Amino acid sequence: MENCEVKRIAVLGATGSIGRQALDIISCDPQRYRATVLAAGSRVDDLISLAIKHRPAIAVIANEALLPRLREALAPLGIATEAGAEALCRAVERDDVDMVLTATVGYSGLAPTIAAIEAGKDIALANKETLVVAGELITDLLRVHPVKILPVDSEHSAIFQCLRGEDPASVRRLIITASGGPFLRSSVEEMQQAKAARALKHPNWSMGAKITIDSATMLNKAFEIIEARWLFDIPAERIDAVVHPQSIVHSMVEFADGSIKAQLGTPDMRLPIAYALGETGRRDYELPRLTLQQASTLTFEQPDAERFPCLGLAYMALREGGTLACTINAANEVAVAAFLRDEIRFTDIYRVIMHALERATRVASPTYDDYVAVNAESRALAQDFINTI
Amino acid sequence: MENCEVKRIAVLGATGSIGRQALDIISCDPQRYRATVLAAGSRVDDLISLAIKHRPAIAVIANEALLPRLREALAPLGIATEAGAEALCRAVERDDVDMVLTATVGYSGLAPTIAAIEAGKDIALANKETLVVAGELITDLLRVHPVKILPVDSEHSAIFQCLRGEDPASVRRLIITASGGPFLRSSVEEMQQAKAARALKHPNWSMGAKITIDSATMLNKAFEIIEARWLFDIPAERIDAVVHPQSIVHSMVEFADGSIKAQLGTPDMRLPIAYALGETGRRDYELPRLTLQQASTLTFEQPDAERFPCLGLAYMALREGGTLACTINAANEVAVAAFLRDEIRFTDIYRVIMHALERATRVASPTYDDYVAVNAESRALAQDFINTI
Repeated sequence: MENCEVKRIAVLGATGSIGRQALDIISCDPQRYRATVLAAGSRVDDLISLAIKHRPAIAVIANEALLPRLREALAPLGIATEAGAEALCRAVERDDVDMVLTATVGYSGLAPTIAAIEAGKDIALANKETLVVAGELITDLLRVHPVKILPVDSEHSAIFQCLRGEDPASVRRLIITASGGPFLRSSVEEMQQAKAARALKHPNWSMGAKITIDSATMLNKAFEIIEARWLFDIPAERIDAVVHPQSIVHSMVEFADGSIKAQLGTPDMRLPIAYALGETGRRDYELPRLTLQQASTLTFEQPDAERFPCLGLAYMALREGGTLACTINAANEVAVAAFLRDEIRFTDIYRVIMHALERATRVASPTYDDYVAVNAESRALAQDFINTI
Repeated sequence: MENCEVKRIAVLGATGSIGRQALDIISCDPQRYRATVLAAGSRVDDLISLAIKHRPAIAVIANEALLPRLREALAPLGIATEAGAEALCRAVERDDVDMVLTATVGYSGLAPTIAAIEAGKDIALANKETLVVAGELITDLLRVHPVKILPVDSEHSAIFQCLRGEDPASVRRLIITASGGPFLRSSVEEMQQAKAARALKHPNWSMGAKITIDSATMLNKAFEIIEARWLFDIPAERIDAVVHPQSIVHSMVEFADGSIKAQLGTPDMRLPIAYALGETGRRDYELPRLTLQQASTLTFEQPDAERFPCLGLAYMALREGGTLACTINAANEVAVAAFLRDEIRFTDIYRVIMHALERATRVASPTYDDYVAVNAESRALAQDFINTI
């Protein structure tokens, strides 16, 4: 694509927090961007409103039962409509798509991301589960289809920015910051009693429910370590997490000479989204600026591995490799959903994951079909255990 | 110079703090560096020891009276010796010099830096007064002789590192950090009574006497703002100073999109020295690493313009241009020397500068000779005023 042309973007997870903020950026820079595909899971009314506003070529809903409603609303506007997982994969392969923003939640992002890479589309990667579940597979795929992967997660965007212009061989260590979430200062007892509403109160970031719970368990940080390992090709033992409750320093890179670079900003996802869409070009969208007041005191501390055992799962998953991270992710998705329905306690989430890890099939060099099978098996194991709690 | 060749370095100010630390780096990487010229002001015995250790082709002492002694010690070793300001300029032009490290103190760095640029030598710039006094002249010179200027000051090295790989047009603001020096929390009364010994107690950095007093008045930070204006071609109104007492974040750059990059490290000058000598290549010299303990709490606050009036002189000097900064620097050199001899009070330093500023000739577009004349005039004005105190 030439610089002067409009970049045509498929937004997967358009009705979610990242998707909506990406559409804000896209719509305020029509010279540069256009959303040609909007896709959502089941929030059909939201998808209809967004499609009416942003006028994509096609709108896709994962839940096939909702297609008639979508079609009825958008057909009069000349917007094509499709439904289902297969349709989503076909949509990202369209000729009028230059870049795919994968802002879906969880495992569901894997198949369309693979389809997009195979179709030679650049990826703005917000769905971290893609690399968590299948980092090896995706990395292999990128050797054959060398598309750009632009991280959207604020931490990975920060690392990506700090690495800019640097020799990859000079990287000593990645330091991923973690807010610590709502339970940073809570006792294990408080965490055991915590209801979903409490766990959903993230101190700094306004995000979707799933990722907010993952922040509370710090499994989100484990996922980010796994994601960073694949994105930046750095072994796990050189990736640290550090608790930084103010969420101003989004992450850091230490280099061979001892110099550390950090990226700072307000906790506003539009910044890394714009950086990814712009492929590292920096443009002024008049986002809120970081003030001296916000940055007046920045603190850093070691995470507490006892109270946040999920964090250590990153190193276990990367040491073992194969389908281990796929099982962790699958069991966690089931456990978080159960917690949000008040069926299990907050501290049970880790127990559910460990239960699945102990029993699920482990495939050392998995194919895509192995991931699909292990994902299904792990979800079933997690659900069985939840039923006994 | 090819990558595989040894880089031959002239170290001006070899006996000072920066010079010695640079020689540490040079001597521990003989595959890459060799010191071919060592120069000092008047510490002849130190220069002799360093020459015996590092075996340069030539040793130069500014104070001509000390030449016999230098020659006597080094002639048996086959090391050439010279003395005086002219000899220094000739030394940096030698064929066996690839890069000149200007680590002299004050105005005296100007002439040899100009000679080095005119001879096409790259500059590792530790003498900030060169750009403070004659930023316009040096900038003009660099258009004709496009040598590399590699900043050694930790703040400018930090900015240089943060700018790496970035589009210069995307820079919104430079944020230079200041420790605040020994009087950060002192009242004006305490500052008035302060003796040299107290002002020399810098909380974080171990540096020479002159720069430590400049840190205490924060004129050093004003100089760094002026230096940054010329090094990075950013107008003064987009360069801020912020007090950061821990001296861990060495400076920051804010970009057009609101993203801020910071460079962090231990307060150890060997890091920016090595970065400058290596022309941005990062090598592991096993310097002390920044620990989480050191960085556990980082604070940032607005500098107090009332108690540190010297800081504001940067903006005045850059607004007016011409020889104004030359006068500030000259008067300050005289005032700091008088303070170190206990002849004036700490708070008199600013008064001496203002006295000279009100009376010195102002040349709008100065030549080198204008700088020489205004420097001499300003020093005389400062000394006259000191004699009345």
